[in-house]
Amino acid sequence: MSDPDRRFMALALALGRRGRGQCWPNPAVGCVIVKNGRILGRATTAPGGRPHAEPQALAQAGKAARGATAYVSLEPCAHFGQTPPCSQALIEAGIARVVAPLEDNDPRVSGQGFAQLRDAGIEVVTGVLADEAARDLAGFFLKTEEGRPFVTLKLATSFDGRIATATGDSQWITGPAARRMVHAMRFDHDAVMVGGGTARIDDPSLTVRDLGVRRQPVRIVASRRLDLPLLSELARTAREVPLWLAHGPDADRALVEAWEGIGARLVCCGLVHGQLDLRSVLKELGALGLTRVLCEGGGAIAASLLANDLVDELVGFTAGVTIGAEGLPGIGALGLARLAEAPRFRLIETRAIGPDVLHRWARKER
Amino acid sequence: MSDPDRRFMALALALGRRGRGQCWPNPAVGCVIVKNGRILGRATTAPGGRPHAEPQALAQAGKAARGATAYVSLEPCAHFGQTPPCSQALIEAGIARVVAPLEDNDPRVSGQGFAQLRDAGIEVVTGVLADEAARDLAGFFLKTEEGRPFVTLKLATSFDGRIATATGDSQWITGPAARRMVHAMRFDHDAVMVGGGTARIDDPSLTVRDLGVRRQPVRIVASRRLDLPLLSELARTAREVPLWLAHGPDADRALVEAWEGIGARLVCCGLVHGQLDLRSVLKELGALGLTRVLCEGGGAIAASLLANDLVDELVGFTAGVTIGAEGLPGIGALGLARLAEAPRFRLIETRAIGPDVLHRWARKER
Repeated sequence: MSDPDRRFMALALALGRRGRGQCWPNPAVGCVIVKNGRILGRATTAPGGRPHAEPQALAQAGKAARGATAYVSLEPCAHFGQTPPCSQALIEAGIARVVAPLEDNDPRVSGQGFAQLRDAGIEVVTGVLADEAARDLAGFFLKTEEGRPFVTLKLATSFDGRIATATGDSQWITGPAARRMVHAMRFDHDAVMVGGGTARIDDPSLTVRDLGVRRQPVRIVASRRLDLPLLSELARTAREVPLWLAHGPDADRALVEAWEGIGARLVCCGLVHGQLDLRSVLKELGALGLTRVLCEGGGAIAASLLANDLVDELVGFTAGVTIGAEGLPGIGALGLARLAEAPRFRLIETRAIGPDVLHRWARKER
Repeated sequence: MSDPDRRFMALALALGRRGRGQCWPNPAVGCVIVKNGRILGRATTAPGGRPHAEPQALAQAGKAARGATAYVSLEPCAHFGQTPPCSQALIEAGIARVVAPLEDNDPRVSGQGFAQLRDAGIEVVTGVLADEAARDLAGFFLKTEEGRPFVTLKLATSFDGRIATATGDSQWITGPAARRMVHAMRFDHDAVMVGGGTARIDDPSLTVRDLGVRRQPVRIVASRRLDLPLLSELARTAREVPLWLAHGPDADRALVEAWEGIGARLVCCGLVHGQLDLRSVLKELGALGLTRVLCEGGGAIAASLLANDLVDELVGFTAGVTIGAEGLPGIGALGLARLAEAPRFRLIETRAIGPDVLHRWARKER
C-alpha cells in the first residue's frame, strides 16, 4: 500500500463522514477519482442516500476517468436496487484500479462488488485505512449485522454528574461552545432520542440549529404510555421535522391516534420488567433504516441503554460547577452490586471545550 | 525585565515547588545564584522550613557570589527568627542584584527585606513571573492573610460522579496512573484530610507510597464525635506519621484521651448547624502552621467545603465506568435551589491519565 493510497483514502473517508446523518438507510460513502496524482472527481453519498458517491464522482471526472483510480470508503454496491450498481458504473467508466478499506457486510454486496470489478480486469486493493473506515461506518455495519443502529449517549453534567438541580433547573450547566457541539453531534446522527421525562420537563425541540442543515435528524421520544404533552415544541413541529414515538403495546389507543393525527410516526415496541425494552426499541429503529442514534438522556433511558450494553460511544461534557447530591443524576439506577459488573468504556479523547471538559469514550468489547 | 531574568526565575520557582508539602509552616522558596550567565548555586527551603533557600544557595556559590544576581521566588526574610535574616546573608555575600516575583505578605517581612537590600546598595527587581509565584505560594499567602491553608479537593469518580457502589465497593474506580498521581498530590501538600465516613469505610492509611519521601504529610480526619475505629490503619500508624483529629467540643472525653494515648493530635473545632464548622477547622489548621491541605472526600466533607466556598482547587479523576444513581455520590447535599447559586470553577487543565481523565479547576473569584 503506497502513501498516496492512504492520503486519497483519508480524503474519501472524510467525504464519507460529511454525509453521516444524511444518508440513512444507506451508508454515507465518500469517493475520489484520481489519475496521475490529480483529483478528477470527489463526492459523498447524496442526502437521502441516492445517488451514491461513485456515479457523482465519475460524472465529475467524465471521460478522463478512463485509466484512473477510484478511492471508495466502502465496497461498491453490485446489486440493482433503486440505482444501477456502482460496480457497473466504475467498469463502464474505464476505471483501472479501485482502492477500498473493507468489504461491505451487506449480504447482497459482500465481495460481489469486488468480484465484478476483478472480473472486468480492474485491480482491486483492499485494507487501506480499514480501522478508520470501520469506525466511520460502524452504524451501517451494526444495522446490517445486529439490526440496530449505533448508539451515542451524550450527557452534559456538573462536576458531580448532575444534569439539573433538585428543582429541575438545568439552564445552563455547560457553556455555549459545548451546546454548539451538541448541535453538530445531532447533525452527525440520523436521529436524536430522549426519554419521556426529558420531553416532559425540558420541552425540547431537538432540532439542529444555526448550522444551515438541509435534513434534520429524526426526533425520537421513548415513552411507554405516550404520556407526553400535546402542547409542546415537539408536537408543534411534528409536521416539519420527523417525530417518532417509541411506545409500549399498552399505550392508550386515543393517545396513539392523537399523535398520529398531528403527524408523528408511532413505533410500537416490546416491554421488559414493565418498561420499554430498549433492545426492542433499537431493533425497530434499525428496521426503519436508522444507522446512528444520539441519545441525550435523561437518567432513566441512559441507565436502560447502559444496563443493556447498548451504548457504543459515551460523550461527556463536564462543567466546573457542583450541584450536590440532591441534584438530578445523569444516569439512573443500574442495579449493580459490585464494581466489576459496571459497564466500562475506553477513553478516545479529552479536551477543553469553552469553559467545560469534553470526554469521549468507546464501548469496550465485552 | 530581560529574558534571562524570566528563565532563571522560572528555575527558582521550580525549585520552590519542589519543596511544597515539606516546609510548612514556612513557604517553600527556591533560590538561584547566577553570575555571567552561570549558575553558582541553587537551593530549596529545606524540609521542615530551615535552612531557607538563600543561605544554602549562597554556601554553594561561596566567594563567587560577590557581584552575582540572586533569584528568589519570594522576598527574602528580614527578621531574626530561628535563623538570621536572609537579607543580611545576601548583603554579606556581596550579591549585586536580587530578582524576586513579589513581596512577601508576612507583615514581619513585607517590603523590609527589599528595603534592607536597597539600603545596602543592591539593585532589586520585582514583578518577574509574579502570577506564577502567586499561584505556587498561594497556600502560604492564604495562611498569612486569611489564617487558613489552601484547599485542594480531589475526587476520583465514575463517569456519573459516583465514588462507590451502593454496597461501598470502590476498589478500583480509577486506574494505577491516577492513583499514582494522587500519591504525588499528597506529597505536594502539607496534609491530607478526609471525613469520618471515609475513615470508617475505607480504612485508609493516607500515606505517600512508592515515592521515596522523607516527610509524610499530616493525616487529618474531621470527625465531630470521634466515632472512628481504634483498630484501623490510621490508629496503628499514629506514632509513625502525624495523625490529627479535628473534632467538636462535644466529643466524648474518653475518646479524646484514647486517641491522644495512641499518639494522635486532637484539634478541637467549632460547630455550625450541629456539624463541624469547616471554616473553624481550617482556621485551626492554619494556626497550627499548615499551608496546603488536600481533601480526599468523602461526599459530606466535600459538600461542606464547597458550600462554605473553601475549595481553592478542584481536581477530578473521571473513569470510563458507570455506576448508576444508587452509587455513593462524590459530593453530598449542597442545598441549592437554583443553578445560579452553584459554586463555579475555572478549568485549568484536562488530559488523559492512563485510562482515565484528569481535570483541574481553580476557584473563581466570587
